Amino acid sequence: MAITFYDLSGKDGARFSPFGWRARMALAHKGLEADAMVEHVRFGEKAKIEFSGQKLVPVIKDGETVVNDSWAIACYLEDTYADRPSLFGGEAGRGAARLINDWTNRSINPLVARCIVHDVLLRCDERDVDYFKESREARFGAALEQIQAGREEVLPNLHQALAPIRTVIEEQPFIGGSSPSYADYAPFGTLMWARVSSPFELLEESDPLWAWRERLLDAHGGAARAEPACPKAA
Amino acid sequence: MAITFYDLSGKDGARFSPFGWRARMALAHKGLEADAMVEHVRFGEKAKIEFSGQKLVPVIKDGETVVNDSWAIACYLEDTYADRPSLFGGEAGRGAARLINDWTNRSINPLVARCIVHDVLLRCDERDVDYFKESREARFGAALEQIQAGREEVLPNLHQALAPIRTVIEEQPFIGGSSPSYADYAPFGTLMWARVSSPFELLEESDPLWAWRERLLDAHGGAARAEPACPKAA
Repeated sequence: MAITFYDLSGKDGARFSPFGWRARMALAHKGLEADAMVEHVRFGEKAKIEFSGQKLVPVIKDGETVVNDSWAIACYLEDTYADRPSLFGGEAGRGAARLINDWTNRSINPLVARCIVHDVLLRCDERDVDYFKESREARFGAALEQIQAGREEVLPNLHQALAPIRTVIEEQPFIGGSSPSYADYAPFGTLMWARVSSPFELLEESDPLWAWRERLLDAHGGAARAEPACPKAA
Repeated sequence: MAITFYDLSGKDGARFSPFGWRARMALAHKGLEADAMVEHVRFGEKAKIEFSGQKLVPVIKDGETVVNDSWAIACYLEDTYADRPSLFGGEAGRGAARLINDWTNRSINPLVARCIVHDVLLRCDERDVDYFKESREARFGAALEQIQAGREEVLPNLHQALAPIRTVIEEQPFIGGSSPSYADYAPFGTLMWARVSSPFELLEESDPLWAWRERLLDAHGGAARAEPACPKAA
């Protein structure tokens, strides 16, 4: 039974949502991504997911089952496709991944947002530009150009905030160990948000996190690498 | 074969080290704590652990095997006593716990230190007071009374820093799920540091973290509750 995956969509179908990436990597981990039908949902197309009873993507529809929220999607896939490779590696791993998921939201996402939020605006479909600009400027309390200005100065804070990941992957390929787990996908999704929507490079090539990101881009048949990256500034 | 556990010791044998607590809870989890011989090591008694080739407690000696560093001790116990209840719940859980362990060191411990560091001084054996005062004042660059002054104002930051734990334990008893895992013991050790050395209360009773801490105090036959708490201020 095919899964329909409702994912946020920008200009030319670019899929940059960090939460969409968590769900997408979870689907890839379970071997379900390639067969999932992808329904692109622009910011202005909330009607497409009205059946889910709320307004946020990602949403998956698996037969008659509808699940929204990237964490709930991961739990649903883990429990429903229990015979496929585990996303969490058991109960203790699930709780720890939940903590890392929330830590990413609180400690990593806001710093990355400050580096790329105006670039995301430029990657929105033109029909969504006004909505994105108004809603994000209201949230941040400043013009998007202004939030993003001086982003080079945010990088040391971001690199420091990522330190707990670095500690782990200096000793092993993934947070999950020899293969990635959902604890990898949560922060990796944030890096994919930047990769797809912004020409600004967040990491230094000498940082072990660079190689970790490369390994995740290659994971599951290069599922993440298949999404076009935003061209780098010349 | 009995394990000898070299743990930091304060006045009257008080055991307040946050890293000592991680090792102690790991031993309790494996059912090894009650039988472990405890060797109290004051700050001024580094000679007692000279055989370990370094100067920091905790250290365990299990037959001929010597292990120092709380994380290394946890991994040693997990691998050596693999037939006992798992500390990590597998490879993915181990990597995620490693991240949470490091996150605790970076994000939680410094805030708690600012709330209790002078109280810890008062709980040191009098032979260690000068050493503790000088080494900590050099590290923090201020008098210990001064660091601790205004600690009430640190609490909102601490409560915010603990938010990723709260997110998890609002949904389940422990980070580990229905029973605690090492991902619980790492931050719990930091709370035990405060409980044993300071009359200052870090948590509010209405905070779900309070009940979580109570559950951890009760875990493994009340292993942590057996250690006398510092009397609360009148």
